[in-house]
Amino acid sequence: MNAIETLVGELGRLPGIGRKTAQRLTYHILKGSRDDARRLARAIDRLASEVRLCGACGNLSDMDPCEFCRSPRRDAGQLCVVEEASDIPAIENSGNFGGLYHVLGGRLSPLDGVGPEDLNIRGLLRRIDDPVREVIIATNASVEGEATATYLQRLLASSADVRITRLARGLPVGGDLEYADGVTIAEAFAGRREM
Amino acid sequence: MNAIETLVGELGRLPGIGRKTAQRLTYHILKGSRDDARRLARAIDRLASEVRLCGACGNLSDMDPCEFCRSPRRDAGQLCVVEEASDIPAIENSGNFGGLYHVLGGRLSPLDGVGPEDLNIRGLLRRIDDPVREVIIATNASVEGEATATYLQRLLASSADVRITRLARGLPVGGDLEYADGVTIAEAFAGRREM
Repeated sequence: MNAIETLVGELGRLPGIGRKTAQRLTYHILKGSRDDARRLARAIDRLASEVRLCGACGNLSDMDPCEFCRSPRRDAGQLCVVEEASDIPAIENSGNFGGLYHVLGGRLSPLDGVGPEDLNIRGLLRRIDDPVREVIIATNASVEGEATATYLQRLLASSADVRITRLARGLPVGGDLEYADGVTIAEAFAGRREM
Repeated sequence: MNAIETLVGELGRLPGIGRKTAQRLTYHILKGSRDDARRLARAIDRLASEVRLCGACGNLSDMDPCEFCRSPRRDAGQLCVVEEASDIPAIENSGNFGGLYHVLGGRLSPLDGVGPEDLNIRGLLRRIDDPVREVIIATNASVEGEATATYLQRLLASSADVRITRLARGLPVGGDLEYADGVTIAEAFAGRREM
């Protein structure tokens, strides 16, 4: 297979990119400078080589512990629990949260065979100790996200003496946190309520 | 800048890919295997290293002359003139053309300062000799594509004794050839008319 068809095939494996979009992107890369193309290739290579899971919070980062867990400027008294590492940039961009994160690596979904033991919940329980005053549950506003939030609320209420809050329903119902805009996320932070 | 932000930035430079899509793609690549990511990076690198302009027709290929110009099975009596190399796969997929191609590298567009001297027209005139019986002008059905077709028709009619045809208006008016489906392209080939 020649270089053009090979790249069209590889790009077509990405989510939301069909064959025609893959062709369009390939020809765009071809028309640009070789340096631009090489920089893109290097960025993907670097991602594959350098990014790893943070042993503390489950975030994806090129440092372990990640930049949040190692920062002395973050408030270790607040722990924001998210489904995926990709939710963290959305929250950071809203500029409303200065605490630490915990990444579950998914959501409870019995239909897909995802139970509590498949999520990074044991790690969460290990972190709920002295400095943590509040756990903010920031799972998605979907059915599975709500179920995960309720499960965590019950688990944490019985095993730790911390305030447990949930992001307000400022998020569009059924929507993914990852795609929400910063203002909506900020409102959701401001209106978070006791569980 | 860390590896994640670097790739989000690079992907965001591609056409039609905004910041959120770039983030989504980056996390998709992160979640996949390292081998998948490396294969994508290698495909881009290979594109940048191996693909060059065909000296005969202006197509982008990893061979010079390209696979069409060097193939003994293509009919050298038919020459299909397209705006961009990216139009060629669309025509090939329609399965209705077995001749050779000529890539102009753009279209006449006085507003953008693109005149005849900016297109690969001199190369086209050099190719219009003995074996060529027919020149099929397959520029886009846009205003610029039509203007380019008319310009080429006049130029070729005065300088060579060949049949000059234009793809039929099976193409949606104003549409780009690159995005047309195979059936539409096939109909356009079948209904091509004298100019």
